[in-house]
Amino acid sequence: MSDNVTWQAYQKSPSVVLSDLPPLSLWLTGLSGSGKSSLAQALYTELITVKRHIIILDGDNIRHGLCKDLGFSADDRSENIRRVAEVAKLFNETGITVICAFISPFQSDRLLAKQIIGNAYKEIYIKCSLAECQKRDPKGLYKKVDAGLIRNFTGIDSPYETPTTPDIVVDTEQLSIEEAIQLISIELLGKS
Amino acid sequence: MSDNVTWQAYQKSPSVVLSDLPPLSLWLTGLSGSGKSSLAQALYTELITVKRHIIILDGDNIRHGLCKDLGFSADDRSENIRRVAEVAKLFNETGITVICAFISPFQSDRLLAKQIIGNAYKEIYIKCSLAECQKRDPKGLYKKVDAGLIRNFTGIDSPYETPTTPDIVVDTEQLSIEEAIQLISIELLGKS
Repeated sequence: MSDNVTWQAYQKSPSVVLSDLPPLSLWLTGLSGSGKSSLAQALYTELITVKRHIIILDGDNIRHGLCKDLGFSADDRSENIRRVAEVAKLFNETGITVICAFISPFQSDRLLAKQIIGNAYKEIYIKCSLAECQKRDPKGLYKKVDAGLIRNFTGIDSPYETPTTPDIVVDTEQLSIEEAIQLISIELLGKS
Repeated sequence: MSDNVTWQAYQKSPSVVLSDLPPLSLWLTGLSGSGKSSLAQALYTELITVKRHIIILDGDNIRHGLCKDLGFSADDRSENIRRVAEVAKLFNETGITVICAFISPFQSDRLLAKQIIGNAYKEIYIKCSLAECQKRDPKGLYKKVDAGLIRNFTGIDSPYETPTTPDIVVDTEQLSIEEAIQLISIELLGKS
């Protein structure tokens, strides 16, 4: 970074905080088709009811905007996750809980996200076998991979590194969405 | 963008909107030392009192995080502004007003920001002569430029293109901060 960048310390006010609950970055990682987006939507609906101020940052949507200059090489995937983590941090600083739904296949990138975001980072591993994801194929992407239309696809010709220290594992082959939300609520959101 | 990116349509809820006022992106552009940061802080304090949910995005701070990979070439300046605009849009979509304090010297970049953000974008030209900015030199940067320690510095060896269609011009050689806030409040925030 250049010499002509000095940190600007703004005074912040806590007066617009909606909730006593600290803002979190709920980081959903897993294969395409594992259920990240469905769970993100259900979590959003659940959290809105307890008056949390929330945003969903979603891999596909972010790649239409902030990260539309990036592809799917390992370097570009890393930069994608880094930017998302920085944005999640900005939202957390404003008192807003962020639901991040990203394949985020590399352990090192998730670790970087955790370093950037800090204690607010909660890793939720959306566990689902590749076979089941291929069967669900909600966006028809696995079919496109089979047809040779997509390369660098996670789980096929690009690796997915299983989380080694997730805060929660949600097995979407075992749990319904309602059960998954209940699990997350109890474990991360302090609800009983 | 690759073929394997499909827009994910999430259902949003309006239930956490704090204010009836539509969220804005108040875009402060001007030379280093023109008064962007001081005005951003004063605007923040003013808007908090009317219960707006706000964040300040500041050039220097963003360059410590989201844009720390970027330098000060014309291309990097453009990419910096593009990312900030995308983030401002995300905040606006969540009902949050954003105060963007960026030199943003190029007309084309400000136009891009406006295109990304849409109608919420309000351009505030913080007008101040280079001579006065050099006299103020709040961060000692103009001295460093004089000493040959910084290059590509806006107004010296990198151009500042005066806004041609700002929503408001705030002349900080003529107005006090209080007067500037009053002007912005009346013109942009619908206060009388």
